[in-house]
Amino acid sequence: MARPKSDIDVRILHAARARFLAEGVDGASLRAIAKDAGTNIGMIYYYFPTKDDLFLAVVEEVYERLLADLVVALDPEKPVRERIRQLYERVGRLNDEERLVLRLVVREALVSSSRLESILARFQRGHLPLVFRMIADGIADGTFDARRDPLVLAGALLGVGAAPQVLRRFLGERLGLTPSANLAEQLVEVLFEGVGKKLQ
Amino acid sequence: MARPKSDIDVRILHAARARFLAEGVDGASLRAIAKDAGTNIGMIYYYFPTKDDLFLAVVEEVYERLLADLVVALDPEKPVRERIRQLYERVGRLNDEERLVLRLVVREALVSSSRLESILARFQRGHLPLVFRMIADGIADGTFDARRDPLVLAGALLGVGAAPQVLRRFLGERLGLTPSANLAEQLVEVLFEGVGKKLQ
Repeated sequence: MARPKSDIDVRILHAARARFLAEGVDGASLRAIAKDAGTNIGMIYYYFPTKDDLFLAVVEEVYERLLADLVVALDPEKPVRERIRQLYERVGRLNDEERLVLRLVVREALVSSSRLESILARFQRGHLPLVFRMIADGIADGTFDARRDPLVLAGALLGVGAAPQVLRRFLGERLGLTPSANLAEQLVEVLFEGVGKKLQ
Repeated sequence: MARPKSDIDVRILHAARARFLAEGVDGASLRAIAKDAGTNIGMIYYYFPTKDDLFLAVVEEVYERLLADLVVALDPEKPVRERIRQLYERVGRLNDEERLVLRLVVREALVSSSRLESILARFQRGHLPLVFRMIADGIADGTFDARRDPLVLAGALLGVGAAPQVLRRFLGERLGLTPSANLAEQLVEVLFEGVGKKLQ
């Protein structure tokens, strides 16, 4: 009879995520993580040779699934505008786990330049090439105004899509901001047409 | 002869900022901060009764001067579009000290909800009312398209202005992105007119 597959690595990952969020990667002790996961430090080292490996594995667990969705959303076969709409929609549907890990990534990127490097290296083998491809396609096919500074273009793409999430997270309840049902579509419109009043 | 005014509080602030950035507010020890500042813990408590007071004072030292500039930039006497241009310009000219403290604020807001509350309370007595006033004025006088979801409007305002800073910080050198001289003006154009190619 086959032994049931051990879930010890998953338990370590989830214990590490909780500790990393509460205390930062530098602050969290492997001993405490091992205890929370019901194992010992030796077992952590067996699966994750360094603390940075453990941190990257915590990110990877969530990123892998997100990336699978982003590959579909950013499929180069689709028109650029539709890729952006699907990207914004997926970002708007980040689940609690993804939000927690995103928070962890932002915080660690602010703390540790080596962790920032590892994360960027992972994203460069992940969704970043698809985003750059989309920008290049949009410039080539005239979807974007090619006279724009690439920094402005990429910044607007990132900012318009991500800022409502930030605002909802930090000010949403306080300001009574509830997003419209068609938020992603509105964001795409604002990205392409701006927030200025149009002459009819 | 008058005694020279002591700079001990400033030395404590700068030592605290460096430690907070390196180790987080929770991780930094008052003993180490006192040592770096060439004083003792008693003197820190004398000036800053709690660690959160010390954190807020570190933020305040930089925010006070920034706010003075924002009050000018966001003066309600000016047209809304001009206020936004001056806001973006000032954000583009954040100095190293301001960048460090902003990094600290973002990180601590991600770690501690009580610190997030204190910071928001400070901003609500600072630049936030000017930003809300600007949005309300822009909707009232037709500068903004009033059909837009306020979350989308505020998000676009924040995102378009701030994202290039984020990108320059994290990807700038890697991607060879150097901002145009008229970056603020371009950002305002993108905010109002979007990144889509215009029909001539």
